[in-house]
Amino acid sequence: MASSSSSLTLSQALLARPTSLHGSNSSSSDRVSLSNVSLPSFSGLKSRSSISSSPHKPTHCTGSRRRASLIRAVAVESLGKTTEASLVEKSVNTIRFLAIDSVEKANSGHPGLPMGCAPIGHVIFDEVMKYNPKNPKWFNRDRFVLSAGHGCMLHYALLHLAGYDSVKEEDLKNFRQWGSSTPGHPENFETPGIEVTTGPLGQGIANAVGLALAEKHLAARFNKPGHEIVDHYTYSILGDGCQMEGIANEACSLAGHWGLGKLIAFYDDNHISIDGDTQIAFTETVEARFKALGWHVIWVKNGNNGYDDIRAAIKEAKAVKDRPTLIKVTTTIGYGSPNKANTYSVHGSALGAKEVDATRKNLGWPYEPFHVPEDVKKHWSRHIPEGAKLEAEWNAKFAEYEKKYKDEAAVLKSIINGELPAGWEKALPTYTPESPADATRNLSQQNLNALAKVLPGLLGGSADLASSNMTLLKMFGDFQKDTPEERNVRFGVREHGMGAICNGIALHSPGLLPYCATFFVFTDYMRAAIRISALSEVGVIYVMTHDSIGLGEDGPTHQPIEHVASFRAMPNILMLRPADGNETAGAYKVAVHNRKRPSILALSRQKLPNLPGTSIEGVEKGGYIISDNSSANKPDVIMIGTGSELEIAAKAADDLRKEGKTVRVVSFVSWELFDEQSDAYKESVLPAAVSARVSIEAGSTFGWEKIVGSKGKAIGIDRFGASAPAGKLYKEFGITKEAVIAAAKEVS
Amino acid sequence: MASSSSSLTLSQALLARPTSLHGSNSSSSDRVSLSNVSLPSFSGLKSRSSISSSPHKPTHCTGSRRRASLIRAVAVESLGKTTEASLVEKSVNTIRFLAIDSVEKANSGHPGLPMGCAPIGHVIFDEVMKYNPKNPKWFNRDRFVLSAGHGCMLHYALLHLAGYDSVKEEDLKNFRQWGSSTPGHPENFETPGIEVTTGPLGQGIANAVGLALAEKHLAARFNKPGHEIVDHYTYSILGDGCQMEGIANEACSLAGHWGLGKLIAFYDDNHISIDGDTQIAFTETVEARFKALGWHVIWVKNGNNGYDDIRAAIKEAKAVKDRPTLIKVTTTIGYGSPNKANTYSVHGSALGAKEVDATRKNLGWPYEPFHVPEDVKKHWSRHIPEGAKLEAEWNAKFAEYEKKYKDEAAVLKSIINGELPAGWEKALPTYTPESPADATRNLSQQNLNALAKVLPGLLGGSADLASSNMTLLKMFGDFQKDTPEERNVRFGVREHGMGAICNGIALHSPGLLPYCATFFVFTDYMRAAIRISALSEVGVIYVMTHDSIGLGEDGPTHQPIEHVASFRAMPNILMLRPADGNETAGAYKVAVHNRKRPSILALSRQKLPNLPGTSIEGVEKGGYIISDNSSANKPDVIMIGTGSELEIAAKAADDLRKEGKTVRVVSFVSWELFDEQSDAYKESVLPAAVSARVSIEAGSTFGWEKIVGSKGKAIGIDRFGASAPAGKLYKEFGITKEAVIAAAKEVS
Repeated sequence: MASSSSSLTLSQALLARPTSLHGSNSSSSDRVSLSNVSLPSFSGLKSRSSISSSPHKPTHCTGSRRRASLIRAVAVESLGKTTEASLVEKSVNTIRFLAIDSVEKANSGHPGLPMGCAPIGHVIFDEVMKYNPKNPKWFNRDRFVLSAGHGCMLHYALLHLAGYDSVKEEDLKNFRQWGSSTPGHPENFETPGIEVTTGPLGQGIANAVGLALAEKHLAARFNKPGHEIVDHYTYSILGDGCQMEGIANEACSLAGHWGLGKLIAFYDDNHISIDGDTQIAFTETVEARFKALGWHVIWVKNGNNGYDDIRAAIKEAKAVKDRPTLIKVTTTIGYGSPNKANTYSVHGSALGAKEVDATRKNLGWPYEPFHVPEDVKKHWSRHIPEGAKLEAEWNAKFAEYEKKYKDEAAVLKSIINGELPAGWEKALPTYTPESPADATRNLSQQNLNALAKVLPGLLGGSADLASSNMTLLKMFGDFQKDTPEERNVRFGVREHGMGAICNGIALHSPGLLPYCATFFVFTDYMRAAIRISALSEVGVIYVMTHDSIGLGEDGPTHQPIEHVASFRAMPNILMLRPADGNETAGAYKVAVHNRKRPSILALSRQKLPNLPGTSIEGVEKGGYIISDNSSANKPDVIMIGTGSELEIAAKAADDLRKEGKTVRVVSFVSWELFDEQSDAYKESVLPAAVSARVSIEAGSTFGWEKIVGSKGKAIGIDRFGASAPAGKLYKEFGITKEAVIAAAKEVS
Repeated sequence: MASSSSSLTLSQALLARPTSLHGSNSSSSDRVSLSNVSLPSFSGLKSRSSISSSPHKPTHCTGSRRRASLIRAVAVESLGKTTEASLVEKSVNTIRFLAIDSVEKANSGHPGLPMGCAPIGHVIFDEVMKYNPKNPKWFNRDRFVLSAGHGCMLHYALLHLAGYDSVKEEDLKNFRQWGSSTPGHPENFETPGIEVTTGPLGQGIANAVGLALAEKHLAARFNKPGHEIVDHYTYSILGDGCQMEGIANEACSLAGHWGLGKLIAFYDDNHISIDGDTQIAFTETVEARFKALGWHVIWVKNGNNGYDDIRAAIKEAKAVKDRPTLIKVTTTIGYGSPNKANTYSVHGSALGAKEVDATRKNLGWPYEPFHVPEDVKKHWSRHIPEGAKLEAEWNAKFAEYEKKYKDEAAVLKSIINGELPAGWEKALPTYTPESPADATRNLSQQNLNALAKVLPGLLGGSADLASSNMTLLKMFGDFQKDTPEERNVRFGVREHGMGAICNGIALHSPGLLPYCATFFVFTDYMRAAIRISALSEVGVIYVMTHDSIGLGEDGPTHQPIEHVASFRAMPNILMLRPADGNETAGAYKVAVHNRKRPSILALSRQKLPNLPGTSIEGVEKGGYIISDNSSANKPDVIMIGTGSELEIAAKAADDLRKEGKTVRVVSFVSWELFDEQSDAYKESVLPAAVSARVSIEAGSTFGWEKIVGSKGKAIGIDRFGASAPAGKLYKEFGITKEAVIAAAKEVS
């Protein structure tokens, strides 16, 4: 049985593209396909003594499209041992059926990719990658990102075989169920062993670029001659869908520019997307495009069983050190399914009981659902001791490093552990009302530069607006291909790629604190990446300047209106709109502290005065009183402002107080933080009994009813902006002291 | 004076890249540069009898970097006449100084691109393009899109010279001022002659792809042998910034796939972006990438004065009919400014009085600000009569066509005029509570297919999710390279490009009604394009399915939470969340009617019953009562639901009524439409006296306080979703009838 189930059947070869699709029975093409299995002069990726190299036995298969065949033994030097070709094939089929069975049980999911990419998955997880299943967070592990995240059952099956505790058999059986560690797309925050959250296409490959950037950066900063303490690869699988997404082109253009030689991406070229053959919408030459982007490109034509070609490609990719490598692997989606392979129907639905049976027959798989054959189990079981050994060796290496380079080791440790240096907050600048008025984008730069001195993991940059966003770290140069130790990252005009790359950087090591910047309105370009920061609990700091009509002449295409509201509605993200120097410092304090929640800082282009009463501590509460002449928590009116309009609220209050009114001015810099305060605190700022409330914010009033109540008034802008000098716009749109005073009189 | 101001000076040649940057004074490179000016064997773009071909006179210039030189006369066959090379140069300098002077007066703007691209601008607007300045909307005009929208002064200067009424001298003097027709970035809704709204980078080239798609589609549908009634080109200028944006790659990949041979894009290759030399972030080979995308590529190395090379490139581009063409034109940003050319400082700031003077001297420009020399004015003045003639000729051609092809002419006319066929609304399907339950995505497909029969301008498709979004028009095939007359557009997994292409299609002709589709959560990928639909008053129909946690197992990456709220906050867009068949039909009625306002339809993956009381008319009011057992406009409690949760509200009401309560159920399908109703109507639905209100919507509660008031209760989901079957999620997240009933008891 072992031989009949583990050998490569001709029907599999028949399914291989491009020699034959849908079972054309040319025996000459069979031979072409099989000859590819012969071993080239390939010295292996890692070597160890061989265990077995017995030749395959002939095998008789039943079924019209299956025939007997002799497969030559293939001695493979792999991570752990020389593995019989038959066992490789059996392992690959195990992966396929774990995916098939899990999707079938859930009656939901995507079997096609795991069935087609199982050979790639087997080679990289069993033979190539360094990892420790019992410590998924081991620092120097190779990273793997399934950019085509819908194929997550491939990744879960591999984690299961490799011995990760996060994916036991019962987890596979709970695929896509409430509370399981095997959700419908890979989620780093649910499943140890998953590096990043993918599913939205193109994000993963951009995350992988960020992971590879982080490795290159840390290696350049910390490695010493003879002490390669940071030294790992980043692997990714992306599909046709990822390739079509603009974000992938953005990120891959940067990967080429930066020469990320340890990034190796597999392009699962299966010619099928949800709507059918990729010919209907995707006829570009991907290889040529990647060469144009500065990548090394290899094409493995038989991804269905050309194991040696996959191995040789990885070897070649590793030899190319100055460029990332794209390995285009032509595969058959749903490989092994006699009636659904190479069709879109196998992409995103369970095969159905009948086709599962047919596939079992076709691939000679006699086992029960979820069964891992003993020899496969045994073969993979070495990854637990070997992973432990890899980590122990690295720990020893690190101990040596630590002896020689104590300071560097301490800093690297803090980056690995995510421990911020004690007292880092003291570096934050503070301001008084006498400090000169300044734009919060400039104050932001003061904070970034102050923090760069105390936070070794802070790095980042702008999407070609560094001089407008004010994001340059003056003490550092540019992170570039030949200066990767530097910390100013030049993203070019690629907002979406930038956000996703920062997600990857942050998820590389808990102590890396990436920030990135553009005009606030262009968060629209990168919203999908920002949402993944929020969802996957990644504390990226988004430095978003030119935060309202206050930018003036560039006009409505550049003036955010609905953006503050749109992020207030997003879960697990901090939307901060500081009003002056102290509030900008407070916003940075909050942003740095929140390592599992991204922060967006909306910053002004125009100068703003430093207001009496603002404070870092106030910002940490989200909403707080900056001035008040009332007593007993009963002001005549409460003025609420954010960012550049807090000044207007304060001025209006001054005028009203001169008229004898009691007025409280509240800065409402972050709604989310205020929401988290105690009821008593909230009552002390916004007493329920005071319904006379006026808010002012140069943006959409959407959502403000919650704060001002139905008897209050929200002053804002519920139309698009216009091109004119900022002062003129404030007047024309009624964002003025006079409007606040009039509203206050109306409501109180 | 004419000769000294109009000849090509050596200092200009010195500024030309790549032979010399920053004024290196090698005389050999001067000669190389000048030799490029000689006339190749080029037979011209359009021919007409020549007026003048007198040779340039030698000219003596002052200033250290200027020298005398002899320029050979260049006889150019152009649109109208053979133009002296000296006059061309003078026209180009006029464009440059109109830009310089306008930016200087505004003390804000981007002079660098207009100065560098003035030669391209002159050639296409003066010699190549067909347009009628007195009727900017003439149907068969060539379209021009400045994708690098910050360089809008180039376009304004060209419109001014060509005689468009929208850009008079006073408009140039009001550049970037309140109420002017010359805002800081091009806006189609402000300035006749501007085709689309650009500024956010990459959008414009994608719009241009949409315009070219529309031309190809209409030409295939309506042209007859000998009657090329639809026949124009689409030109675009894009810069390095556009090239870096992912959306540009998405759209250009599609343009190559579709073989849009009449799309000609100029890539302003000036090697400068805001952060400095493009070397810091952009080192890919753009030409190779475009070839990989299926484009024809030409490189004009001397874009600063290689007029004949530009002309020859356009000729070549027109000869290539099966592919779009990218003409890479190497230019010098800020050409002519002795101290700022070829630096980022000239990109986005006024030159300053001193440098303006120096540039005037350098380019030999003795005129006052905003002056158009008489010979230039006279030269351009022919475009008014010639434009009128072009239109008249086309009108005659159309009259011939109409005689022969009456029906086709009538349909084309309706597309040109944007007149919807009388009674089209009757095609909308209606439903009763007895109609079978169905997903609103399926009901949407019924509507799309019903409308396709009566709306000749309806076309669109999905970003590779046609079979999930249910967007296929069954009576039509695929719009493809060789079947451009069809109406199902296959966008591939390119949401952002899809949105911007639809903006272009809609702005081609008022009667074209593009729709596009993806999962609702992936509006995050295309939000920048959707915002431009809203801002630029383009009635694209966004068909967004899988609109809540109701999609189930795919999990939180695929489950929209904050999306409905985020679009409710956006100006000039209709966010519609229909509950069943009648409401889906109502949503389409609204969407088709609103030609100047985009609509987003959020549609369910899961089946929903057809509810008693829903109606098309109700949807048109945004919020309306679907059932009520109260009297005197005083229910005990008002239940408010949208989309898939309206059913839950209705069921809760039934239960409460059984307990003796008076309950009103309100469908709140579109907040924007409800906001537009009379106060009396609003009071009739949501009486101020009834504060007992409960809303239910499977999404963020952000903003609902406005509707339910501070005494009401909003049931929703203020966290990310999860991967599990939909029913389980509804229970776990408390989106249930029981929760509504409990809330109703709490508030009433």
